[in-house]
Amino acid sequence: MATVAVQSLISAPLQIPKITQFKIGICQLKVTTEKSANIFNARSLIQAAAEQGASLILLPEMWNCPYSTDLFAKFAEDFSDIDSAPSLLMLSEVASSLGVTIIGGSIPEKDAGHLYNSCPVFGPNGELKAKHRKIHLFDMGKPLPGEVQFKESDNISAGEKPTVVDTDFGRIGIGICHDIRFPELAMSYSARGAHLICYPGAFNMSTGATLWELEQRTRAVDNQLYVASCSPSRDSASSYMIWGHSTVVGPMGKIIATTGHEEAVLIAEIDYAAIQWTRESLPLESQKRNDIYQFVDLLRESLNS
Amino acid sequence: MATVAVQSLISAPLQIPKITQFKIGICQLKVTTEKSANIFNARSLIQAAAEQGASLILLPEMWNCPYSTDLFAKFAEDFSDIDSAPSLLMLSEVASSLGVTIIGGSIPEKDAGHLYNSCPVFGPNGELKAKHRKIHLFDMGKPLPGEVQFKESDNISAGEKPTVVDTDFGRIGIGICHDIRFPELAMSYSARGAHLICYPGAFNMSTGATLWELEQRTRAVDNQLYVASCSPSRDSASSYMIWGHSTVVGPMGKIIATTGHEEAVLIAEIDYAAIQWTRESLPLESQKRNDIYQFVDLLRESLNS
Repeated sequence: MATVAVQSLISAPLQIPKITQFKIGICQLKVTTEKSANIFNARSLIQAAAEQGASLILLPEMWNCPYSTDLFAKFAEDFSDIDSAPSLLMLSEVASSLGVTIIGGSIPEKDAGHLYNSCPVFGPNGELKAKHRKIHLFDMGKPLPGEVQFKESDNISAGEKPTVVDTDFGRIGIGICHDIRFPELAMSYSARGAHLICYPGAFNMSTGATLWELEQRTRAVDNQLYVASCSPSRDSASSYMIWGHSTVVGPMGKIIATTGHEEAVLIAEIDYAAIQWTRESLPLESQKRNDIYQFVDLLRESLNS
Repeated sequence: MATVAVQSLISAPLQIPKITQFKIGICQLKVTTEKSANIFNARSLIQAAAEQGASLILLPEMWNCPYSTDLFAKFAEDFSDIDSAPSLLMLSEVASSLGVTIIGGSIPEKDAGHLYNSCPVFGPNGELKAKHRKIHLFDMGKPLPGEVQFKESDNISAGEKPTVVDTDFGRIGIGICHDIRFPELAMSYSARGAHLICYPGAFNMSTGATLWELEQRTRAVDNQLYVASCSPSRDSASSYMIWGHSTVVGPMGKIIATTGHEEAVLIAEIDYAAIQWTRESLPLESQKRNDIYQFVDLLRESLNS
């Protein structure tokens, strides 16, 4: 029988970030088949969010590229060579010129012959602080009546690790779309001391209606932290119809802000004091029964990370 | 660094139960301060559910006793001496006379000087097949404005293990009220091959409105199985106001049946084929990343249990 290390059962203490009250801006972008137009449009909406007071800005999954497997390679960029990566270069430039932190949704990433669905994070000095590669790829089995077959792993390779990034606005965990379906990833972020989990995603019409809001609210309440999601807007002419409805949820499961399926800039106020009083009022973490079950985060490096 | 065994990471194969399509009856009982009246009333509603075709019947948390800590000891029964336990004796009698299986909500249990919040399960021959003692007690920390302080562990001892019971209507996992807040318990039931998780519960007005439906739906969709809940009805004169809204949820998160806060018998059709096609359409289990995180069920005895 195999054994695994359990040091990671202990949650990291929640650090107090530099800024605890701020506005998050969610850019529910319209995505077209023209990469240059997508980049220009994303920059405009990031600027609009900043003008409305947002200092942390979240973009959708695959915002520079239609969600079409045959286009991923063409639109992909190399994260190790930002000067040759137009989407990343724009994010770096706009982050530093506006002084904002950007959780950059995702774009196709190319690396050593592989493609990934990757989220870049830029700090207010324009530096690429982190990237998250989608861990759980959306591979459907046998489609239900009315569903369109989709197997993301035909074209995309899966990421190999969870991603938390320390910003001026707290410790942020990142999951991309299908990553939200796995409670384990959110549990690992909570145990690593995250204040906020950002889920760029492009749920379809069927899973969108039933699961999109549900999964965000449950990840927030089960882990007593903030959750923010960002979807592209819906293109009714596309074969892959997107649900939209980007949302921000507080640690008690309350929807703080949400929108419809059109292109939109959503602004929400976040106050991390809510995490504190939620946990004080109901200390779920200390009520877990580690004598009965244990959750193990195999890749966590230390008790404080 | 401690290590733990991981054989329990492998999910038990889903067995095909004797009966795969059936009606479940949920008895949202009104609870009074008179134990004899509660027993008589429960028997009547169990009979009404059976007359409407239910062959599996679920009762609420603390259905023989008001949810008042000072009454638990007075209303408690000894599960090892059914002939001296009026509530259990009635359940045994009605199960065998109607030929139904009863997931008996919960009543206070007394054992060796301790009190437990315990769910008895009776088979159609009147036999006590299993009992689940509430594992996660509802101990509030610092109450939020408008909330009433509550510390269940002042009076009740916590159970020490998850409970799955094999019935004619599949393998059933049991959680009582606050047990539903812990995704780990539902994960352990899913890995142990449960078709259905039954949650007797008595959520209050505040957590009821925000969390009761959310938690049921998320346990169902994250584990791709059925969830049924049963609450007492609301007594507007009581100091502990109960939310009600007993509900049955399918493995895709759809609400199959639900009710308001009045006393009610709720009947819902269950078809375990839905578990099969839900899992075939999206095989979440095989998409989990056990190279990144692992969930360990310390008390599972074998791969098939």
